[in-house]
Amino acid sequence: MSSNFTTKFAIPEVIFGNGAIKHLASCARGLGARRILLVSDMGVEDAGWVQMVMDLLAQDSLECVYFNEIDSNPRDSQVHAGVEVYLAEGCDVIVALGGGSPIDTGKGIGIIAGNGGNIADYEGANRIMRPLPPMISAPTTAGSGSDMTQYSIITDVSRKVKMSIISRSLVPNISIIDPTMLRTKTQELIIASAVDALAHAVESYVSRLASPFTDHHALQAIRLFVENLERAVEHRDPKALEQLSIASTAAGMSFSNAGLGALHSLAHSLGGMFDVLHGLVHPIMLPAVMRFNLPECIEKMAAIGRITTGRDHKNDVSAAYAGIEHLERLFQTLNVPTHLREILPDPEVLEPICRMAVYDACTMTNPRDVTCEDLQSICKEAW
Amino acid sequence: MSSNFTTKFAIPEVIFGNGAIKHLASCARGLGARRILLVSDMGVEDAGWVQMVMDLLAQDSLECVYFNEIDSNPRDSQVHAGVEVYLAEGCDVIVALGGGSPIDTGKGIGIIAGNGGNIADYEGANRIMRPLPPMISAPTTAGSGSDMTQYSIITDVSRKVKMSIISRSLVPNISIIDPTMLRTKTQELIIASAVDALAHAVESYVSRLASPFTDHHALQAIRLFVENLERAVEHRDPKALEQLSIASTAAGMSFSNAGLGALHSLAHSLGGMFDVLHGLVHPIMLPAVMRFNLPECIEKMAAIGRITTGRDHKNDVSAAYAGIEHLERLFQTLNVPTHLREILPDPEVLEPICRMAVYDACTMTNPRDVTCEDLQSICKEAW
Repeated sequence: MSSNFTTKFAIPEVIFGNGAIKHLASCARGLGARRILLVSDMGVEDAGWVQMVMDLLAQDSLECVYFNEIDSNPRDSQVHAGVEVYLAEGCDVIVALGGGSPIDTGKGIGIIAGNGGNIADYEGANRIMRPLPPMISAPTTAGSGSDMTQYSIITDVSRKVKMSIISRSLVPNISIIDPTMLRTKTQELIIASAVDALAHAVESYVSRLASPFTDHHALQAIRLFVENLERAVEHRDPKALEQLSIASTAAGMSFSNAGLGALHSLAHSLGGMFDVLHGLVHPIMLPAVMRFNLPECIEKMAAIGRITTGRDHKNDVSAAYAGIEHLERLFQTLNVPTHLREILPDPEVLEPICRMAVYDACTMTNPRDVTCEDLQSICKEAW
Repeated sequence: MSSNFTTKFAIPEVIFGNGAIKHLASCARGLGARRILLVSDMGVEDAGWVQMVMDLLAQDSLECVYFNEIDSNPRDSQVHAGVEVYLAEGCDVIVALGGGSPIDTGKGIGIIAGNGGNIADYEGANRIMRPLPPMISAPTTAGSGSDMTQYSIITDVSRKVKMSIISRSLVPNISIIDPTMLRTKTQELIIASAVDALAHAVESYVSRLASPFTDHHALQAIRLFVENLERAVEHRDPKALEQLSIASTAAGMSFSNAGLGALHSLAHSLGGMFDVLHGLVHPIMLPAVMRFNLPECIEKMAAIGRITTGRDHKNDVSAAYAGIEHLERLFQTLNVPTHLREILPDPEVLEPICRMAVYDACTMTNPRDVTCEDLQSICKEAW
């Protein structure tokens, strides 16, 4: 961090632990809730968590209106449908329960409820001028970090663009993180979420806006991810799932304040055009993006290499490469796609994907300057 | 952390950097300020910072009322005098500028302005039921951490007690940390503040409420303290002062959420009876308290030892002792008192000091159970 650089660091109040969700009603009351809009989705419903949360609120005589019209890549129209419910029902606090999709949708509903207009009006950084209703997030995956962050990612369907909306006022008031909720997730979702958290940690650690307030969160997340992923995936070990929750939370604290990079630009662009599960883009693209960025951040890439391999190395360059190779091997053991050709129809689509990715807000904080041609060669390497 | 333990983590929004104070007016406006109560003290005035802040607010057409009747161990009556000014002048936001004393006083004023009654009514944990006015803290020392924390320490003059007031609502809304403000401090104040931050880091790291959300902040603080203290004290090196600011902030994030221990119980009790500079108690007592606690937290003490000495050690016990000895030697080089007999009149006073310290809120989170007799033998060791 240069000496004349002002850095900002903001996170929600965190309540963490197995069973922590039982504090929801008192947290909502503390924010002045009388009638809550509960935002979630079918997957979370099927696991029984929506009913449990409704019961918790009812026990405390809090009224609750439920909204669940959400895709895994939430759409602009779904945000606006949610706002109509929020306003028509006279809600005063938003509780978002789920992975990144319900939480990002909850944030979108809050933006329009507090500021009016169309969700696309707020695309980019710092476009939200008026306060949002109080919001509590309760993540059921360990990955998106949306419960920690000033980001909301909403798909503009007509333009086929995943919009990044970034504002301090999108940091929820409170995040209640209860790792027991991870126990009902499919293996695929645990992997996709955890790899997303890893990607947040790596990209924010080398970001142009990284600071002493974000770096140690990023490194903690990388270490916990490497130490716990396999046990969490293969055995659903509760202790390992708890550690992945901590990793995801730490990664969220880091990337919300430090920003991301070219990997997320590409993932957003690709996710806007093809409805792929966001986290599954990272095992394919992360190593190629890291190799591209390496010349601009050798020391930090070496630190990542030392943490992931658990070994010292004779110099920074070999530590950095060893780390990238370690992650590549780890992704191969996960039984997920590791080549773009497995998820995209043909190489012709790469050019429009990259053309759009250059303009994503995440491109600005990538440690190395990046052009459309650079992104295309990264994609070709990962094809 | 046990698996069925709910942990909470709350910090203010942080704005950090050389020159960051220039963001004060826009931050205050964001909190709805029209007429600010500025709380500071003579030392900060003499260094020119009070006038600078008043000018910054005036440039932005924010009205400002000034309150500076504060001792270095702020008193109950001073809090109440500040409340009278706040209410009589119709203020709406509190800005506290200074070390721990003005910030703790600002918090006390906020408590009474929002809740009424007497400041002694709120002694202990979680006694504040209604919201406080919005508050911005701008620390001018790197040590107290009060700008980060849910603590306010106010002296009850009639009982000669430093009251610990602890509540989530004492976390300021925003903390603006501008390390350039450290450059006007005396050497004694830089040392007293930095050692206080170190003590916060050590005590919170081994606290019973330590969590994965606090541990890495504590370790970062210890590392930065050891690496930068001497350069900051001897040469007032701006880069080293900046790192001490980061250390103090990290230590504040840790102890606000993890609590402290017997060292701070003793320091509060001692400071209630004798008006000594709080930070200067720690070089005297920290090693003895660490030795007392060692059996309950050998692994963590060893981690501290490895960080402070910068070396691995053949086992945890020798790493732990090496760390304590390293800190003792470091304190001896600082030219500050390292024995209780240098600051107290005679050993007779130890018994009443320890009798009161047992009931301090910090005693509860000490890693090892502690009786009045234990505290007396710690004090005798440090005599």
